Parts: sequence; structure tokens; C-alpha cells
Amino acid sequence: MAQNPRVLSVTELPTSEARWITLNKIKYADAEGVERLWESAQRTTRRGSIDAVAVLAILRSKTDAFPLSTVIIEQYRPPIDKFIIELPAGLIDAGETPENAAIRELKEETGFVADRVIQSSPVVVSDPGMTNANMKLVVLNVTLDDKLETPEQKLDTGEFIVTRVVELAKLEEILEEYDTKASTSLTLGGFVVDARLSHFAIGYQAALKVANGTF
Amino acid sequence: MAQNPRVLSVTELPTSEARWITLNKIKYADAEGVERLWESAQRTTRRGSIDAVAVLAILRSKTDAFPLSTVIIEQYRPPIDKFIIELPAGLIDAGETPENAAIRELKEETGFVADRVIQSSPVVVSDPGMTNANMKLVVLNVTLDDKLETPEQKLDTGEFIVTRVVELAKLEEILEEYDTKASTSLTLGGFVVDARLSHFAIGYQAALKVANGTF
Repeated sequence: MAQNPRVLSVTELPTSEARWITLNKIKYADAEGVERLWESAQRTTRRGSIDAVAVLAILRSKTDAFPLSTVIIEQYRPPIDKFIIELPAGLIDAGETPENAAIRELKEETGFVADRVIQSSPVVVSDPGMTNANMKLVVLNVTLDDKLETPEQKLDTGEFIVTRVVELAKLEEILEEYDTKASTSLTLGGFVVDARLSHFAIGYQAALKVANGTF
Repeated sequence: MAQNPRVLSVTELPTSEARWITLNKIKYADAEGVERLWESAQRTTRRGSIDAVAVLAILRSKTDAFPLSTVIIEQYRPPIDKFIIELPAGLIDAGETPENAAIRELKEETGFVADRVIQSSPVVVSDPGMTNANMKLVVLNVTLDDKLETPEQKLDTGEFIVTRVVELAKLEEILEEYDTKASTSLTLGGFVVDARLSHFAIGYQAALKVANGTF
């Protein structure tokens, strides 16, 4: 029976016992040649040169029956102990291209089947002051007939992901609603939006505001 | 004399010796009540409830002498061992509001003086599968006369930050150029773009492409 996921305990993890991430002490020379130290975390799971992909799916009607939309997900994340609103995303498997990983993750997490890669971002870094984590954003096209139905997911055992289809022009407004939304029976600590999704939405809306002179 | 900053050595850092970040083992109950483990990194420096702010400065001409622009920075980041292209950003001091931290960081890192807060994002999380790091994006207005001059920075000792003013409508194109730009005498390993800045730029450009039917 479904219940609220929740953190039970948090303990300090010795680096020697960690399996998925590790801590590094970096000795570096700065622009004046001075030796300095920096502390950094990194994943131990990187197989190629990129950790992960995120997917911006553009859901498009063949018949213009609905406005250009995308799909976002709600997923419990233990490091935050809340449900995070994110783009579909995942780690890249060994031997997999970022674009194929994006198509696979979109299908697994949302059921939507992409028919075309619109755009693939450069490799970008998620939090470069603290970690070496990197990723690509892949923009995928999903052409649908007149109905905007939510297909069946292909989740792994133990994966619990809620999908939500959102009109692109309303994305920023909907992300702000999550921030203020009261806890419901399915959410112990509420919702938090992923920074990258938030920045995309703020960028999209900024261009619309500039166009109509309200920015 | 200025030289290339560079990593000299990387060694495993025991959690017990780390000062700025730490590793946690999180025991949590999933949506079916099953006990599971997750590994997470976190900063030890958070003073209030938010780690950091990033600043999107909107540089605006009183006389429409130049198009709406913003300022980005180039900064060496040891965890990546490259120059990262980012929005101006910084940690929030004790007792400081995110908006005041944004105004302070913008002035320190770029010299631009904000006259108004346009928008302050919800608290968002930078990489919620791996860390608890969180932040706010603050959009600040900077009104200038007819000339788009780059003012003097107020950097701390040991801070080396290059600023660059970019037209908003060209931001995505310029970020892509960094990705392919050859190393120069000032860059050992080249440039990498921050994911949040990249997502903002892709969002901004996506809205322009949708408007002219090319997305």
C-alpha cells in the first residue's frame, strides 16, 4: 500500500564506506601560482565522460488540438526528503549515447515515445563549486494525434514517479504553485523544484515577458 | 603574474577531515514502506535555510541605446578543472536575505549596481539525486544610460573572475561557442557552461523559436 516515503535516519558516512559518491581533496594552483585546497564530491558511477541526461520533451499535436506542452515528473529524493519536480532524467548506461539515454528515460519514466531529437545541449555542470557532476539536456520531439493522453510508464521495481503534462507557456506559473502548495496525503514535506527545470521555465517566460514589454 | 590555474593533485578525503562538505548515509522508507539506503553530499556552510543565490542581471538602457542584456562570468572551478561560465553567484551570509546577497554578489563580482528586484525564484535544488544543495535565482534590474560599459569589480583577494556582457537574445548561441572554443593562453582545459545558466538560455531561446515557428 502506498504511503509517504520519508527519511528514518541520517548518519555521517565515512568516505571509505561510500559506494555511489566520494569526497576528494583537490590541491590546485590559482591564477597567481598560489597552492590552494578545495573539497569536492563526485559520483563513482560515471561510465563515459557524462553522468546523466535530462529530457525536455516537446509534446506536439499533429492537428494543433492542444498547445505545445512538456512533461515533468514528481519524484521523492532522499537527500531533500521531499518530492522534487524535475524533468525526466537518468544516468547514462555504459556504451549508450546521451540521446539514446534520453529517449530510453523518457519512455521508462513517462511512457512518451520520441520521434526526433530537436536539440542536444553541450555537456554542462550541475553545481561546479561543490561537485564534478555533469549532464546534457536533450530536447526530444513527441508528435501526438489530437488527444493529449498520458501513456503507461515502464518503471523499474521500486521506482515511484508521477508524471504531469504542462503547457510550455504555463510552466513557470505551475512550478511556482508547487512551491506554495500545501502538503497532501501523498506528500509529507511538500514539493521542491529542481534548479535546472526552474531556470528553463524562468528563461522561457522571460522571453515572453520581454516580447510583450513586461520584463 | 597571471597564469593558468590547474589541479596539482586529487586525493580521497576522509569525511572526518572534510571542512566544507560532508557525506551522509540516509536510511529512508520508500512508498511501499521498504527501508532503503541513499548516499548524499552536503555543504557544512549553510547558515539559514538556503545555501546560495545566483543573479540574472537585466542590463537595460534608459534610452534604448542597446538591447536587453545580462552579465555572465568566467571562473576557474577546481572540481571541474576548467573555467566555468556561470551567472554571478555566491553563498548567503548569516542574517542576509537572498535578495541582498544577490545585490552584494552582483556588485562584488561584476561592479553592476542593481536598482530593483524583478523576480525571486522559489528555493530550488541543484542536483537532488546527489546533494541537498539549494539556491534561489534572483532577477535584478540594472538601469544604465546609453553606454554599456563594464564597471570595476570589487573582488576579494584570491578571486579571479572575468565578466562578459551578453545580449539576452544571443545568450544560447554564445554559450554554445564556449563549448567549442579552442583553448587560449588563459585556459588550460577550456570552458564548461553551468547547467542552470544553460537551461535558462535554452528556455529563453525556445520561447523565441516557438514564436517564429522554428521549434
